[in-house]
Amino acid sequence: MDISRFEDTIVAPATVPGTGAISVIRISGRDTMAIVDKVVAFISGSAAEAKGYSVKFGVIDDTDEVLVSFFKAPHSYTGEDMAEISCHASSYVASEIMRKLCDSGARPAEAGEFTRRAFVNGKMDLAQAEAVADVISSTGSESLRVALSQLRGGFSSELAGLRGQLMEVASLLELELDFSDEDVEFASREKVSALVEEILDHIRKLTDSFRYGNALRTGVPVAIAGAANSGKSTLLNALLGDDRAIVSDIAGTTRDTIEETVVFDGILFRFIDTAGLRSTSDEIEKLGISRSYRKISEASVVLALLDVTSSEEENEASISDIVSRLDLSRQSLIVLLNKADLLGDNINVNILNNSVSSPKEQVVKLYISAKNGDGLEELKKALVKTQKDLSLESDQTVVTNLRHYNALKEAEGALADVRKSISSGAGSDLLAEDLRRAITHLGAITGEITSDEILGNIFSRYCIGK
Amino acid sequence: MDISRFEDTIVAPATVPGTGAISVIRISGRDTMAIVDKVVAFISGSAAEAKGYSVKFGVIDDTDEVLVSFFKAPHSYTGEDMAEISCHASSYVASEIMRKLCDSGARPAEAGEFTRRAFVNGKMDLAQAEAVADVISSTGSESLRVALSQLRGGFSSELAGLRGQLMEVASLLELELDFSDEDVEFASREKVSALVEEILDHIRKLTDSFRYGNALRTGVPVAIAGAANSGKSTLLNALLGDDRAIVSDIAGTTRDTIEETVVFDGILFRFIDTAGLRSTSDEIEKLGISRSYRKISEASVVLALLDVTSSEEENEASISDIVSRLDLSRQSLIVLLNKADLLGDNINVNILNNSVSSPKEQVVKLYISAKNGDGLEELKKALVKTQKDLSLESDQTVVTNLRHYNALKEAEGALADVRKSISSGAGSDLLAEDLRRAITHLGAITGEITSDEILGNIFSRYCIGK
Repeated sequence: MDISRFEDTIVAPATVPGTGAISVIRISGRDTMAIVDKVVAFISGSAAEAKGYSVKFGVIDDTDEVLVSFFKAPHSYTGEDMAEISCHASSYVASEIMRKLCDSGARPAEAGEFTRRAFVNGKMDLAQAEAVADVISSTGSESLRVALSQLRGGFSSELAGLRGQLMEVASLLELELDFSDEDVEFASREKVSALVEEILDHIRKLTDSFRYGNALRTGVPVAIAGAANSGKSTLLNALLGDDRAIVSDIAGTTRDTIEETVVFDGILFRFIDTAGLRSTSDEIEKLGISRSYRKISEASVVLALLDVTSSEEENEASISDIVSRLDLSRQSLIVLLNKADLLGDNINVNILNNSVSSPKEQVVKLYISAKNGDGLEELKKALVKTQKDLSLESDQTVVTNLRHYNALKEAEGALADVRKSISSGAGSDLLAEDLRRAITHLGAITGEITSDEILGNIFSRYCIGK
Repeated sequence: MDISRFEDTIVAPATVPGTGAISVIRISGRDTMAIVDKVVAFISGSAAEAKGYSVKFGVIDDTDEVLVSFFKAPHSYTGEDMAEISCHASSYVASEIMRKLCDSGARPAEAGEFTRRAFVNGKMDLAQAEAVADVISSTGSESLRVALSQLRGGFSSELAGLRGQLMEVASLLELELDFSDEDVEFASREKVSALVEEILDHIRKLTDSFRYGNALRTGVPVAIAGAANSGKSTLLNALLGDDRAIVSDIAGTTRDTIEETVVFDGILFRFIDTAGLRSTSDEIEKLGISRSYRKISEASVVLALLDVTSSEEENEASISDIVSRLDLSRQSLIVLLNKADLLGDNINVNILNNSVSSPKEQVVKLYISAKNGDGLEELKKALVKTQKDLSLESDQTVVTNLRHYNALKEAEGALADVRKSISSGAGSDLLAEDLRRAITHLGAITGEITSDEILGNIFSRYCIGK
């Protein structure tokens, strides 16, 4: 049963040839079985008569011995007839097989074209298709959990629910239009208002989750800030467990910002080492320092590194400088009192009591020694906690995709307009129109409403073979 | 039907996780199906009841949706029960699946362990098992053709034939020992002698093929030699089609030897750019030049590059210097008269008529311009011809493996001993012993006779997952 809307048959490597033990080449489309039969000689039977979800051993002349898995439309990833050819992992062998398949009627697939076909053929909605890329790029248990839930349609059915509720009201309002002479109200304005508030609440929870969701995908940006020579590079190396940054005793060693990612407790953190914050006349170093300030204001978490052997005044100045560039309503600050190993028992507990005035309880203070590792486990826990605080209820859907976030924001705007119109006593035509706008934006996420341009944008970022 | 001699079940990624669209994880051993059932929840049925050569869709909790291909002993690569789990290509997902399989009773496979099991379980002989690695690392049609023929058992059956003939004679000679009192000759010495000569001939053809076979695997070593500033780096770049070597007009730019490989007409060539040959007082450059002379004497083909705008004397001196370091009985020389574009019509045909005296017909002379590409196609053809001349008949087995080459050399030595013993009238006991020695060495190639140490040596060089 062919459900495909496509005429041609596409082929691409699904693994990177030339590495590992085997390579897999994927082919999908109406002529899959005929093309495979032209290229592969099977020991028994043929691709044309193969059952779906079966495997056959075959030989490709002068090229390789292969295993071919068959999938029959519509029970395949793309919904089309498909085959996966498993060959030895030589890039020469894989390119020869690709060439033979193309000589026999297939064409090389574009990036994301298999998943795009799966979407167009109705095997998954757009949010699910986008989750495929997220599963592939997942780096830890948290990002994977969120991507898997989206892949399995959790987010999609949530959106379908919201759209359904809005659609019902919109239909009633549109019905009023047909009876506009009679001035009836099929949808009571109180009920519409209550529903809009409820859905606005729901959408705001989703958009709020994007900060966490985005951090899951790209890593939580953590800036390591502090005066020159406070030990920033040493701390980065200690957190990463290797010698990524060049450490020296010369103040001003780190001129470029360095970024490295590491997973703690399933969450990806992206550490940004910055140039030491200090007055300098070196033009290149000045550039580095102004870049540091930008990185600090863009980070989700800022580690303010102080040197406990420096004077109290210096540390107060340093922390004031950093805090003045933060927005503690959306950024977490962790103050690290470094070189604690040099203090012995003389721990100076007064540092910072003045500088960080407002929401003090948000600020974590830790004594550490980046050099010998003291306090690093506490630091990792504090970092994880900044994110776990954000993740709300465990079954809350997390929005990870900027396109979804923007669509939700548009829907939010349209519903805010509905609210305004109700309070100003606007007619049902205006209300219905704004509701339809919200419905359209929500539908764009799952691809109920879409365009070739949107699809092109989405799938061109996929890898070849997916 | 379990043919396996192994108790434990092994698992490894068969592709490199974190790249491409999918990853494949391979598991083999007695408990394969039970372990897969513990880790994967199938939509219908179970691994235990799956048929061989079938595929099932399943879900791994909190990790991924997967396709699993099943193979039942003995109809699998290893001869054991096997499964291949195809998941999304996230290295996190793949490592999670590996972890779950290991938690459920599998253990991570060592390098080459799947193929080693295939050998031990009698699914392939040792030469075939070694060919698997050759197919994976094949870089062109020639190396692939040779590896495939070996994988399909061509070389193995040829060796079996030789062993069979020798074994028959050895048995007859051993029979003579039982009747030693009666002084009978079951195997006429003339016939033994003729057979030994025939087999020696055959083996010598095989060992002779190793120069070509080895070049196929590692690339034919081609040294580019010549005076400083004759255009060696420009020529290398022109052959490779990119800017691999730094080209400058300062004599002595290339101090290290640079190696790059490229395939012409299915044959892999390994080009070695060398430091310019000239007198110098720079110590580092001196080292480079002495390395150049070594590379020249190790190469299969030497490209002697002359600058046609230099004086005849300089070029004669340069070519004499190079030729004095060559062994033209085993090395091919191609003389390139570079910068031909600067000559106009004044082509000086006399260059070299004196220097390369003996086997002149072996030496190819070409006018080229590395800078604008003139004559490069002729050069590529000449390079391919140096190798095609070596490849003998097209159906000749090519030995590509040093282990095989050494075993053949040992067998050759044992047979030479047989010949000597016959001519000196030695007894049948001595002849039989030498024949047995030859048989043993031939048998070592296919693994009729082998040891754990030999197997360890061979398979530890494989990649994980093969």
